[in-house]
Amino acid sequence: MTDPLRIGLAGLGTVGVGIVRIVQSHAELLAARAGRPVQITAVSARSKGKDRGVDLSAYAWEDDPVDLAGRDDVDVVIEVMGGHDGPAKDTTEAALAAGKDVVSANKALLAIHGQALAEAAEAAGRVIRFEAAVAGGIPVVKTLTEGLAANEITRIVGVMNGSCNYILTRMEDAGLTYQEVFDEANGLGYLEADPELDVGGIDAAHKLALLASIAFGTQVNFDGVALEGIGSVTIDDIRQAADMGYKIKLLGVAQMSGRGLEQRMQPCLVPDTSPLGQLAGGTNMVMLEGDAVGQIVMRGAGAGEGPTASAVMGDVMDLARGLRVSTFGQPASSLRKARPAQGAVPAPYYLRLKLLDKPGALAKVATILGDAGVSIDRMRQYDHADTAAPVLIVTHRTTRTALDEAVARFEGTGVVTAPPVAIRIEAV
Amino acid sequence: MTDPLRIGLAGLGTVGVGIVRIVQSHAELLAARAGRPVQITAVSARSKGKDRGVDLSAYAWEDDPVDLAGRDDVDVVIEVMGGHDGPAKDTTEAALAAGKDVVSANKALLAIHGQALAEAAEAAGRVIRFEAAVAGGIPVVKTLTEGLAANEITRIVGVMNGSCNYILTRMEDAGLTYQEVFDEANGLGYLEADPELDVGGIDAAHKLALLASIAFGTQVNFDGVALEGIGSVTIDDIRQAADMGYKIKLLGVAQMSGRGLEQRMQPCLVPDTSPLGQLAGGTNMVMLEGDAVGQIVMRGAGAGEGPTASAVMGDVMDLARGLRVSTFGQPASSLRKARPAQGAVPAPYYLRLKLLDKPGALAKVATILGDAGVSIDRMRQYDHADTAAPVLIVTHRTTRTALDEAVARFEGTGVVTAPPVAIRIEAV
Repeated sequence: MTDPLRIGLAGLGTVGVGIVRIVQSHAELLAARAGRPVQITAVSARSKGKDRGVDLSAYAWEDDPVDLAGRDDVDVVIEVMGGHDGPAKDTTEAALAAGKDVVSANKALLAIHGQALAEAAEAAGRVIRFEAAVAGGIPVVKTLTEGLAANEITRIVGVMNGSCNYILTRMEDAGLTYQEVFDEANGLGYLEADPELDVGGIDAAHKLALLASIAFGTQVNFDGVALEGIGSVTIDDIRQAADMGYKIKLLGVAQMSGRGLEQRMQPCLVPDTSPLGQLAGGTNMVMLEGDAVGQIVMRGAGAGEGPTASAVMGDVMDLARGLRVSTFGQPASSLRKARPAQGAVPAPYYLRLKLLDKPGALAKVATILGDAGVSIDRMRQYDHADTAAPVLIVTHRTTRTALDEAVARFEGTGVVTAPPVAIRIEAV
Repeated sequence: MTDPLRIGLAGLGTVGVGIVRIVQSHAELLAARAGRPVQITAVSARSKGKDRGVDLSAYAWEDDPVDLAGRDDVDVVIEVMGGHDGPAKDTTEAALAAGKDVVSANKALLAIHGQALAEAAEAAGRVIRFEAAVAGGIPVVKTLTEGLAANEITRIVGVMNGSCNYILTRMEDAGLTYQEVFDEANGLGYLEADPELDVGGIDAAHKLALLASIAFGTQVNFDGVALEGIGSVTIDDIRQAADMGYKIKLLGVAQMSGRGLEQRMQPCLVPDTSPLGQLAGGTNMVMLEGDAVGQIVMRGAGAGEGPTASAVMGDVMDLARGLRVSTFGQPASSLRKARPAQGAVPAPYYLRLKLLDKPGALAKVATILGDAGVSIDRMRQYDHADTAAPVLIVTHRTTRTALDEAVARFEGTGVVTAPPVAIRIEAV
């Protein structure tokens, strides 16, 4: 096959421009590797006249991306507009209906409408590839779908939102509160237009739901992700976790158990000597665990023009080479609906309390934990100037349910002076 | 396509048995993901009667793997026998000649005969896939060939021999000499039958040459790897590098410059806080750097039954899904012969000296370095009981040629009492 692969590019923001740059600067390299030229034939964006720093004069312009998707001179539609409804969804559906493959960086669209879109792709004999939707430049979708295809995947764990990791790292390094660092990051333009997408864990949960679908052969289920952002993480927790040998990360975890599919995106503790514990700043890291391969750790830039464009164009190169794998790695009709099962997998927990400094206070708390079947691994009580002592407890493995039952009973003791903080410790 | 993919398995050592286990235990999973059954139809190994702990009774047996390669009921031949000539080469050639794809874990065979085999594959309209030949379970071949296909690769850096990394880590942790740890590791069966393949860096250099071919579109050239094993690394160097903030690793580096392709496998220093610096024990790590993606780091088990079988079966799953990429990522005929260019890329160096403890000794050494254009970044002189003082120097970036010239002139000073040790510091 030596006909050129012809791209219709919908979206000319940062990532779209990065794609144009790669296609223009690496024409020879792409052709050598694909065995055929890779070209852009048409583009679409909101504002035609805007100077984007790249020369678009050789490409046809479409005001409406849906029209772009239907063009006869387009083989593959790249959707980098974003948004989980509206033009992004319409364009993707129009491209599939017109018999074109789609390469998408749109995690929200796929996390919410992925199953329907995968079915539409299959009905049209086409695929949607979405490497850029998860962890930016890290080829984690390909690794999971193809490289580890012979493994039963046992767990996915990852830091998949660089902004949150930046905020948590900066809080620790500079001794600043969450709100201080949030304001700073927002002012520097590090956060999404709706910052809750980042700090609420929504963006990262979209990514986790996509990976879980591939890993476990289940229909993508974003609503099944137990979601907790980083807004409640305090500098005290960061410091005292550090004192126990841990870092706090916004961690996505997906694993299948006999009770169903557990998907969580929440602040967790990880050992400070682990690869995840040592991940500072805006970088992403994903650990994939399989029964044959053991643990694979991948690290790289999770966002930005170059890394995201690299991931989009990696998918385009696959299509140019004739490599076409099902959207979620197996026929859409064969993806099962998974039963959501939160809290199915027990873990140790970190528990931070303030206890009245009087005889028997600690005994009351310890008794309640013991009665709930929660045993204590390590405990530290700290110096204090006021009438209540900070106490840190690391439990042995327990269920969240048992722990919550115990914590609910703390109030009745009269010795716990502030709402206890409980954070899961993930083994990594 | 719902016809089964039929495997002929040549080799029933550790990896071969791991492949049998995956095919037998994951039949349903493989079929769901590939969209067709994946089966073994025939096997071949040296000793038919041997109990390997798996049931082979359903498979045809061939005493000669070349006969296996020619069977009509085999679509893909897996070659996990090893050896860079003899049966492994004959079987691979026979399989291609018979119009079958080949999945290989054989780094030596491909590093030495890769270009000829890739041409033979192309002539037959087939491919050789070799994920398992490089860094065990880590899908680095796929990442480089496919995931990063839209990048100009700027550098590959990796720890690709777990045994060497184990030895260096153990020397540091236990304070043992190279020979002591070598004997220990050899006694425990951690090393190849010919240990020089491991500790001489040959095995790792095979892997580096394969990655370089994909990265730079060049004919695989194992002879072009500048090769230095770990046998000369002393516990003193490990300790004193640590004192300067570095770890010693057997590092593979490949990069293209205006002067040609540089491929090196040699002990290097890396910062102890870097991902490579923190890599302890038998794990592998590969960093891939591309102009768009930046730096991707991949970490995982570099050897062993499960990880290696996972990589082999990942390739088989690609073939079962109809994903067939050229052996080295582009047509074999388009791979250029690269000009080898050792020492083309300057770097800082660590220099360990013993200097006579008398006035002017250090000045003599510093003058020679300055005259050679080598400038000093940091220097430490240590306490000493005898008449010569240990001196460590970290230079600014320089070429190996300039450094070697300076070191050659040290002897004439009469103040350098032992052969100086120079180790490259790789920026990672």
